[in-house]
Amino acid sequence: MSHPVYIKKSVDQSLPAFLEENAYTQVIVLVDENTKRFCYPAVKALLPKHTLIQIRSGEEHKHLETCTHIWQKMTDANLDRKALCINLGGGVIGDMGGFCAATYKRGIDFIQLPTTLLSQVDASVGGKLGIDFQGFKNHVGVFKDPKAVLIATDFLQTLPFEEIRSGFAEIIKHCLIADPAMWDVICRRDLEEQNWDELVSHSVAIKAKVVEQDPTEKGWRKILNFGHTIGHAVESYMLEQPKRKLLHGEAIAVGMVAEAYLSYKRKLLSEESLMQIEEFIFSIYGKVTLQPEDIAAISPLALQDKKNASGKIQCVLLKSIGEPIIDQVITQKEIQEALKYYQG
Amino acid sequence: MSHPVYIKKSVDQSLPAFLEENAYTQVIVLVDENTKRFCYPAVKALLPKHTLIQIRSGEEHKHLETCTHIWQKMTDANLDRKALCINLGGGVIGDMGGFCAATYKRGIDFIQLPTTLLSQVDASVGGKLGIDFQGFKNHVGVFKDPKAVLIATDFLQTLPFEEIRSGFAEIIKHCLIADPAMWDVICRRDLEEQNWDELVSHSVAIKAKVVEQDPTEKGWRKILNFGHTIGHAVESYMLEQPKRKLLHGEAIAVGMVAEAYLSYKRKLLSEESLMQIEEFIFSIYGKVTLQPEDIAAISPLALQDKKNASGKIQCVLLKSIGEPIIDQVITQKEIQEALKYYQG
Repeated sequence: MSHPVYIKKSVDQSLPAFLEENAYTQVIVLVDENTKRFCYPAVKALLPKHTLIQIRSGEEHKHLETCTHIWQKMTDANLDRKALCINLGGGVIGDMGGFCAATYKRGIDFIQLPTTLLSQVDASVGGKLGIDFQGFKNHVGVFKDPKAVLIATDFLQTLPFEEIRSGFAEIIKHCLIADPAMWDVICRRDLEEQNWDELVSHSVAIKAKVVEQDPTEKGWRKILNFGHTIGHAVESYMLEQPKRKLLHGEAIAVGMVAEAYLSYKRKLLSEESLMQIEEFIFSIYGKVTLQPEDIAAISPLALQDKKNASGKIQCVLLKSIGEPIIDQVITQKEIQEALKYYQG
Repeated sequence: MSHPVYIKKSVDQSLPAFLEENAYTQVIVLVDENTKRFCYPAVKALLPKHTLIQIRSGEEHKHLETCTHIWQKMTDANLDRKALCINLGGGVIGDMGGFCAATYKRGIDFIQLPTTLLSQVDASVGGKLGIDFQGFKNHVGVFKDPKAVLIATDFLQTLPFEEIRSGFAEIIKHCLIADPAMWDVICRRDLEEQNWDELVSHSVAIKAKVVEQDPTEKGWRKILNFGHTIGHAVESYMLEQPKRKLLHGEAIAVGMVAEAYLSYKRKLLSEESLMQIEEFIFSIYGKVTLQPEDIAAISPLALQDKKNASGKIQCVLLKSIGEPIIDQVITQKEIQEALKYYQG
């Protein structure tokens, strides 16, 4: 990996050493109302004089208007190019704070301090930065690595149950695409029985290895999108529905069942594996209710997926648990069929 | 240089070969009302089916709202990651179209077809992309190289006199920082007598060499900012004044005289060289009228220059013609003094 990832219990085991090794003229910390309350006190104690920028939590604020607010605060603080931006939060803070840092004066250094399970196992590694645009997820952004990722697993204790469950979806995905042995371990345990310290390290290692081989997603990195072609379409759609918003992992859970079904339908995946996947996912996430009109509206949204080319929807399917296959063209009709299966 | 620059008389000598060597799923062309009228017909004839995106000309439209328009049109056209964006225009089109392409779905290929003298000798080479933000020039952007730069000197014939004169300022700058022999050549000729084909090649070669040594402006590349610390502040200020807007090169001409004066004042540059520089620049550009209240308002704007660090204004000065020196800290008071000298 081109940037170091430090996985420690607490942030005081990584942040002071990082700051000592790197000289910055100024430091800003980006938080939302949750991380300001639960995580910032531990970070603040370790920092020199700095500027705090606060934004509102939630994917629905991951857009240009919030970037404008962040760039404005950076400008007001007279940040120069040798400043450091510390993104303290989940995927929204990391993606958007990283994007703002990567574009402020054509780029200042930033580090990711992921505070959610989802961002610790997924968003913090891989250099994908960006924001949503007109309802399309991560539609505007860049690839740029943070200077470092400092993961403090202590922060997981500040999370509500739903956030842990959401992050777990990416761990499930990493097992399904890369580690059948670990899949066997996790699917024999309830959510409460999982070993988070072990799973964070495991997931980061898998993701880092895949990203290293293909940093800008020309080929093999696409396996990380298993569950995401349909999952993102579901997530985008629900974001616009009053009171039906899903957490990222909840939408990806839907996508993984639907894409496992398509893998089975194409005679790639065995029926037994499909059953095992859907039983475990339903036991953790239950089932999201999708009416026929929802399903009809969701399938066209998959067209906007960034992996697509030539107007075709490209998807990752499974040949078996641990064995993904990329660049599988699927149709809107198949997506509808898969979501009907999910619902049915 | 990491990307090829083709300098030809006309675009049909470079564009067809480029398209043949590179396979794209879709092509979009970004124009303004001027390049649509004067340059697009020649380009259109060489392209397969494509999408045209038109924006309004002028630095005052180089902002996020216009980016939103461009990203929206890209989205409407269902552009995928294997699409090509052709930026057909001056610096505004190149900087902003490049920025939109570099951030749309985290980056699609783009090529620069610079149509003004300024963009041919300056903006098209070096990978600096961006937009203005809250009155600060190029405050939001990224470094990213175009896939290629296709310079067609025929396009210069479509330009009004002021645009040629504006672009000439960067040619003057390139001579002052890197080529005293060429300085002697240009300063013995009127504007009408200059050999543009020769000067475009000369300037591109100088800039490319400097950029290659230091692509992200950590050190030596800063020499390209001669005249720009004060020039940008003048440009930003005048942009906000009713009917006093300057073209980029007109502002840089002011900045070069002011910074040459500071070089003389610090006993770096000889009085003879200062006289030669200011006489030639005044003969080409005349003198912009700056009242004491203008000068007072201009100097603080230099604080926002991206080359600064630790709240200090950093500037490029001249030890002699052809011999620049970087990282010279200057004060607001010195800027005021230099602008009074300019005016005086």
